[in-house]
Amino acid sequence: MASKFFAVVAGVGAGTGRSVALRFAKAYPVVLLARKPESYNDIVAEIKQGGGQAIGISTDTADPKSVASAFETIKKELPDKKLAAAVFNVGAGLSRKGFLDLTLDDLRASLEGNAHGLFNFAKRVVPLLLESVDDSPHPPTLIITGATASLRGSVRFGDMAAGKFAVRALGQSLAREFAPQGIHVAHTIVDGVIDIPRTKHYEVNGGKPDGKIDPDAAKSTQIAESYWYLHTQPRSHFTQELDIRPYVEKF
Amino acid sequence: MASKFFAVVAGVGAGTGRSVALRFAKAYPVVLLARKPESYNDIVAEIKQGGGQAIGISTDTADPKSVASAFETIKKELPDKKLAAAVFNVGAGLSRKGFLDLTLDDLRASLEGNAHGLFNFAKRVVPLLLESVDDSPHPPTLIITGATASLRGSVRFGDMAAGKFAVRALGQSLAREFAPQGIHVAHTIVDGVIDIPRTKHYEVNGGKPDGKIDPDAAKSTQIAESYWYLHTQPRSHFTQELDIRPYVEKF
Amino acid sequence: MASKFFAVVAGVGAGTGRSVALRFAKAYPVVLLARKPESYNDIVAEIKQGGGQAIGISTDTADPKSVASAFETIKKELPDKKLAAAVFNVGAGLSRKGFLDLTLDDLRASLEGNAHGLFNFAKRVVPLLLESVDDSPHPPTLIITGATASLRGSVRFGDMAAGKFAVRALGQSLAREFAPQGIHVAHTIVDGVIDIPRTKHYEVNGGKPDGKIDPDAAKSTQIAESYWYLHTQPRSHFTQELDIRPYVEKF
Amino acid sequence: MASKFFAVVAGVGAGTGRSVALRFAKAYPVVLLARKPESYNDIVAEIKQGGGQAIGISTDTADPKSVASAFETIKKELPDKKLAAAVFNVGAGLSRKGFLDLTLDDLRASLEGNAHGLFNFAKRVVPLLLESVDDSPHPPTLIITGATASLRGSVRFGDMAAGKFAVRALGQSLAREFAPQGIHVAHTIVDGVIDIPRTKHYEVNGGKPDGKIDPDAAKSTQIAESYWYLHTQPRSHFTQELDIRPYVEKF
Repeated sequence: MASKFFAVVAGVGAGTGRSVALRFAKAYPVVLLARKPESYNDIVAEIKQGGGQAIGISTDTADPKSVASAFETIKKELPDKKLAAAVFNVGAGLSRKGFLDLTLDDLRASLEGNAHGLFNFAKRVVPLLLESVDDSPHPPTLIITGATASLRGSVRFGDMAAGKFAVRALGQSLAREFAPQGIHVAHTIVDGVIDIPRTKHYEVNGGKPDGKIDPDAAKSTQIAESYWYLHTQPRSHFTQELDIRPYVEKF
Repeated sequence: MASKFFAVVAGVGAGTGRSVALRFAKAYPVVLLARKPESYNDIVAEIKQGGGQAIGISTDTADPKSVASAFETIKKELPDKKLAAAVFNVGAGLSRKGFLDLTLDDLRASLEGNAHGLFNFAKRVVPLLLESVDDSPHPPTLIITGATASLRGSVRFGDMAAGKFAVRALGQSLAREFAPQGIHVAHTIVDGVIDIPRTKHYEVNGGKPDGKIDPDAAKSTQIAESYWYLHTQPRSHFTQELDIRPYVEKF
Repeated sequence: MASKFFAVVAGVGAGTGRSVALRFAKAYPVVLLARKPESYNDIVAEIKQGGGQAIGISTDTADPKSVASAFETIKKELPDKKLAAAVFNVGAGLSRKGFLDLTLDDLRASLEGNAHGLFNFAKRVVPLLLESVDDSPHPPTLIITGATASLRGSVRFGDMAAGKFAVRALGQSLAREFAPQGIHVAHTIVDGVIDIPRTKHYEVNGGKPDGKIDPDAAKSTQIAESYWYLHTQPRSHFTQELDIRPYVEKF
Repeated sequence: MASKFFAVVAGVGAGTGRSVALRFAKAYPVVLLARKPESYNDIVAEIKQGGGQAIGISTDTADPKSVASAFETIKKELPDKKLAAAVFNVGAGLSRKGFLDLTLDDLRASLEGNAHGLFNFAKRVVPLLLESVDDSPHPPTLIITGATASLRGSVRFGDMAAGKFAVRALGQSLAREFAPQGIHVAHTIVDGVIDIPRTKHYEVNGGKPDGKIDPDAAKSTQIAESYWYLHTQPRSHFTQELDIRPYVEKF
């Protein structure tokens, strides 16, 4: 693979972030950002074993200095590469508390983890994506992972919804500002439980075997394929918002 | 191609319907429904030339008898095939009149062309899709083409919006009723002008060359690819609504 | 009461229509439209007993001739009055059938009862409201009653949702076209069960005493007061959509 | 006036907050919260001159300690009063910058001013409203002022939209959690320019005289009346979201 472009995925772990990184690694060197190396080390190894190129960088996207430092590292490690795709997949701030038990720190964790996180990330990636408009294989893309709580403030989801609504607001603003310049900003609504080790014991949707969203990149058109599909849309044909939901999920 | 499945596309012409038919013909024999043979004849020929299998049937989807007759013809022509995918792409009822000039016939044309049309079509295809759940290569799929007017009643779009809103309502009901049985019902919001001969003279979005939605199936990820992408989503991962919009379109 | 204006309410019965008519009758002579005299006779009597002025006219709003005839009658009966407010409160088309049992006639009943009904009614009232812009005590108003099914196509609500979505589309188009001319078009989302004799046995929301929406105009700020409130909004301050929901209703 | 209840309005100034305070002062003693005394001094004087009761307290709702201190002051000043209504009308965080010029401090100002502000305010008022459920003249009410940016992330409104979306998310969570306990939480979408001294020079909507929203409580059904209307809705009939828009505003 001799792509002159790379992709960056913020927020990798056992679920969506991992599968997206594996999928994009088929086409580009991929940079993985997560707060702790144990979140990306195995994925980096997996990509390399598969013949791909990957770098992991410990980054707290809620901290602008940490993000700045990560992008300096990227510049050193991939000096000749331009950015083709950026994925913001950071999850933060679900305390599942009723309002009377919720603290300002719970709310702050969600707002900073989600909205500051996307802001800091976008401040770095948007200028790089703009530099790639003329020659990238697909329109330079920023994909943001949302959730049911991006559309609906439910009981015990006040903090999470505040952060996710704010992220959606920023995403819409970015889409409306930068689409005319050729940047594709898409937001996904992941409406369901991702099937990862942490959720193995969740009994959702009657426990049906495919009642959770399978992020596995090995399967043909799973969640990672959706992100890849969004990335490869031509600019005459941008999708701004996409919902993803297991067939048994009520909505 | 020896697929035991087929696809049916209602509403084919120069734009979306044609490109979708060409795309699905790569995998399945395709039945094309349109009111007049001149709408499908060239597409049938194009598919056959490309080595695919296609049948055109003159059908008025607003008329339940015409739809019933079309599906009897299908049964005769493709006696051993099961239905994998159905696309409702019928456009109807845009008079562009202010309300004071609008007639009940304008409104009726939109409601019958859009809502009756989808209803009559779905009455035939849903039972067939249910029969395919166990063995179709992808979850049996019904895709419905919507528009900006599906979400917004604008000035001079009252009749069209009434029909398109009603179609979206039916689509949501179908999705919620049949997703748990394994049927994928998706609705697209095509927010922009399709680049077809009829719209060649439309000066939209500053006349930029890719300011219209290109339905051409020959290109890699255009509108037809989106429909194919929706069809191939696994059931742990259904998208219900997808917007499609040129990068220069205001929204 | 010597108002030179009148109000017209289409769709009166035991619930919202009755209470709205009683409320508007405090300020204007009120014309009540319903298919059958038994739907309006008692309300007309009640208004007259209270010192108000009321006329009932048997009208099928889905039939343009019937509506035309009703407005000819109005012109004869109230020759010097101008129209201040019109309320479209017609309910139609809920079969509560699953899709496989739904018939085209079920769908047609909803589309014609709801969308044709509003269209026929608006064709008559909008020109009359335009004539009142300069001297009516409040901005001339058209209020349309919607429901949960105006926003959401649920299982067994396909036909109703199709009609209600279409009505909302028309309402938005009317609002956007005629607001700049001084007409106030508002749409309500009545999300809950109206507490009328027909629903007395409905056990909703745990059977709490005020778990249903009380349409009684005798109480100070009930549903009829909301419609009056909408009517009396000045034109610097129009509400287009208003939801109404009992405190115990899940949403 | 010998009400045993009071109202509190956070965010008073020349516009909505002032008019709402004047309107609620007709029924209750009113507490006015603003960062600076010059924002509330004149309104307090105006209410007292009109025979009402009012207290102004310098408060930064974004700071939980400041809010706690304000409510301790309230307890001392109005020791026997219970809370009937609370209005969160704090505006914050509109830089009108394109994304490339936006700073994290701009975003933080919006998130803290809007979302932290509502959170800190609600943490104090919700418990007080719960104590009033049984005997308040109207269902205890929390009304939150939103804007167009609560629903839509536009170009140069990214920071404001992030804060306003987050506020709407919190408002929905509060409504869904506390409505069944009898608390009415409503959110308004003020879609237009408020006609206050600061906006006198704004040429909106062709400069028509009533092209801006007039917050003046002296007029019968202006914005303050809408808040009063929301407050007086009975619990069988709660409105969760209400849009307010001048007749000439495009939407």
